[in-house]
Amino acid sequence: MDILDESTCWELFATAEVARLAVVVGDDLEVFPINFVIDDRTVVFQTGEGTKLAAVTIAQRVVIEADGYDSSRNKVWSVVIRGEADRLTDFQEIYRVEKLPLRAWTDHPKQWFVRVRPTEVSGRQFYRRRLDG
Amino acid sequence: MDILDESTCWELFATAEVARLAVVVGDDLEVFPINFVIDDRTVVFQTGEGTKLAAVTIAQRVVIEADGYDSSRNKVWSVVIRGEADRLTDFQEIYRVEKLPLRAWTDHPKQWFVRVRPTEVSGRQFYRRRLDG
Repeated sequence: MDILDESTCWELFATAEVARLAVVVGDDLEVFPINFVIDDRTVVFQTGEGTKLAAVTIAQRVVIEADGYDSSRNKVWSVVIRGEADRLTDFQEIYRVEKLPLRAWTDHPKQWFVRVRPTEVSGRQFYRRRLDG
Repeated sequence: MDILDESTCWELFATAEVARLAVVVGDDLEVFPINFVIDDRTVVFQTGEGTKLAAVTIAQRVVIEADGYDSSRNKVWSVVIRGEADRLTDFQEIYRVEKLPLRAWTDHPKQWFVRVRPTEVSGRQFYRRRLDG
């Protein structure tokens, strides 16, 4: 196992199409898939009204994980970004992030932008095992 | 958005190569990728010594999420399994789960088996948005 430096973490994280946002709200732990874009070493995603928005608004402290397989090096990687989530309310900031290349998996309405400012970025990689059969 | 019934949740979950295990330990929220196998509507995975084993042993209550894209129906799905994790210690049970088709991404030593017994299984799916460009 290799511990990844922060630059490598961001490089690999950026290759993921989807990440998972985990957040604790009271006694509940919620995990959601998110489409995201990296903006100046913050993670920006969109959400509609609902549990995800409520969760990050209430809890703020979130963990985002992405993982993948780097076939060029036959390595599996996992990156975990811990941070503070904030719904964007500043009009100029929203206008700016609307121009970011943020692709959504779904047409489900997602009118809010959330930015996660990292407090800790960590990552690991492993050589991938040969899968038989 | 469609809410998935439990049978569909298990069917889709079984198609994922990797899931993410989220667990709260004290003030910390940990998220790990896991390879898993479904055994009689429980989720079994392997782990070595380390944070993942410590976390599930201490916390027990875990959330496992998997997601994916069903190209035959152009739908994106996410399934969340909440449950109680237990490290297997019964020799006969270990002997039995060792025969399950559990594939690991890595050769990292993983001598322990953990079984998660679901308390709640939920899932959602969305039509996938047409991605431009």
